[in-house]
Amino acid sequence: MGNIHDIARLAGVSASTVSRVLNNHPYVSTEKRQAVLDAAEQLHYEKNINAVHLSRGKTETIGVILPYVNHPYFGTILSGIAAAAEENGFKLMIVQTKYDVNQEIDALNMMKLKQVDGLIITSRECPIEMVEDYSTYGSIVLCEAWTGSQMSSVYINHFKAFKEAITFLKDRGHSKIGYTIVRVDGKSSIARRNAYEEVFHYVRDEWVFDNSLTIEDGVRVAGEWKELEKRPTAMLITNDFVAAGFILECRRLGFQIPGDVAVIGFDNHPIAAPLGITTIDLPLQRLGEIAFQQAISPTEITHQEVPFTIVKRESV
Amino acid sequence: MGNIHDIARLAGVSASTVSRVLNNHPYVSTEKRQAVLDAAEQLHYEKNINAVHLSRGKTETIGVILPYVNHPYFGTILSGIAAAAEENGFKLMIVQTKYDVNQEIDALNMMKLKQVDGLIITSRECPIEMVEDYSTYGSIVLCEAWTGSQMSSVYINHFKAFKEAITFLKDRGHSKIGYTIVRVDGKSSIARRNAYEEVFHYVRDEWVFDNSLTIEDGVRVAGEWKELEKRPTAMLITNDFVAAGFILECRRLGFQIPGDVAVIGFDNHPIAAPLGITTIDLPLQRLGEIAFQQAISPTEITHQEVPFTIVKRESV
Repeated sequence: MGNIHDIARLAGVSASTVSRVLNNHPYVSTEKRQAVLDAAEQLHYEKNINAVHLSRGKTETIGVILPYVNHPYFGTILSGIAAAAEENGFKLMIVQTKYDVNQEIDALNMMKLKQVDGLIITSRECPIEMVEDYSTYGSIVLCEAWTGSQMSSVYINHFKAFKEAITFLKDRGHSKIGYTIVRVDGKSSIARRNAYEEVFHYVRDEWVFDNSLTIEDGVRVAGEWKELEKRPTAMLITNDFVAAGFILECRRLGFQIPGDVAVIGFDNHPIAAPLGITTIDLPLQRLGEIAFQQAISPTEITHQEVPFTIVKRESV
Repeated sequence: MGNIHDIARLAGVSASTVSRVLNNHPYVSTEKRQAVLDAAEQLHYEKNINAVHLSRGKTETIGVILPYVNHPYFGTILSGIAAAAEENGFKLMIVQTKYDVNQEIDALNMMKLKQVDGLIITSRECPIEMVEDYSTYGSIVLCEAWTGSQMSSVYINHFKAFKEAITFLKDRGHSKIGYTIVRVDGKSSIARRNAYEEVFHYVRDEWVFDNSLTIEDGVRVAGEWKELEKRPTAMLITNDFVAAGFILECRRLGFQIPGDVAVIGFDNHPIAAPLGITTIDLPLQRLGEIAFQQAISPTEITHQEVPFTIVKRESV
């Protein structure tokens, strides 16, 4: 691949003429323009999209920050983003952060470096102020409740969803309710604790099971639940993979669902239906599609809450 | 962000001098070089990674072609690729193709356009000859059995894995064995039919269940299996999500696993353990990691078969 000097040499013009042609500036004679384009063609120069991006200042690429690429919650959001990107002829640049702040900063820098036009943050560890600083470089979309003027957001109201699930269990006679979270200090974990306290005023720490993200975690939580002296009669499990592991392990241990322990899940993942899990349906695919639209609309800051619904099955 | 003409104006030099400096060419006086760098700095020009990529001819980005981003088989491969990319400071550009040839060509063009240094094709619809044409533009890694000299490959031997699974069932007394596939004309579907015919010489078409990719598909296949006049006594189900749906629906319909129908799955997804699914463990995370290493080693073409193992549980 030639650079602009090779093109200039081949076309018999100056490098600045080459630049003018490649940047679509006026004031170049038709003859010289053609010579440059012919030389560029011959040297495959026009094949370098970075030159096009450089001249346009646009990349038609959106960055996506995900803690885990291979997790059903984030995978479904990604699937919605990917479907919308496909429809709009955009590419996606993805960064798996595992909640490592350095990885997140690295991803934020993609926008500063003009590698992407916009950035969707599905979940984060680094402070919001740090994120906001980057909003001068392009559009940032947060998948969390946020109503500031610089960044768009699309989110599920985790406080409301959790409170509705707790109330659903309470209305069915449960007062000893345990629940799972991913990270103790995560934003949705804090929202969930607040919701719990609004309904029951007090949370027993041993009824909160953290680091609950995978099917294996659900199996582990079932073991921990079994060992408790005062076992919760109902579990609110914040994703259906964890709920699946919990239910299958409880059954293996000889417990009845919902007889010994009722379970309500989150997400309405395809595993929930054949396992009969009552769950909070979260429109994650739709959330991803909205996030993409917001990311390509930098001048229009919006904040959208997506609705959730309870899907009643047999586990409560 | 300024372009090179703005920088030239501010630095009081010609655009070709700016180009020379930004492309790291020699023969520019220290004084002029500094003036250009100062102006570029002032105009935030140096912040555009596309200029850096343009001058270096490298993007430190690898493209990944996936039929589905949110599917456990491809998701696990992606997770391995993402882990290796993270470790090596690379970014990933992903394209979800849904086996649409136009999407695949679009993705192949990312490399022609120098948007990525290399490309990993986890699965494809378009002809191999078409893919091979693009190998002159950068490294292409195929996640399928391929031994040509222009592209690296890392793969599971689906023929061997399928034959071993069939033999495992045959050794346990089964002669009526059904199986699932995703696409009738997919490469691994053809390999599987060949393996089946090597063991049993003949495949009953009604025992081959196609379009089987998701948990819901597994539920559907259970319904179809139930309706057969001659039901297979064993099912070889080519991913554990489909196997999970099949098993849960069979149980719901009152059938015993393995009493009424034995099941062997594929992948050893985390859902397999709590459901007691006997399965072929495929090291997909590792496969993704190897694919990434191959993608960043363009001068070293290798072909690596990754091993599989049978994990015995209760479903056979």
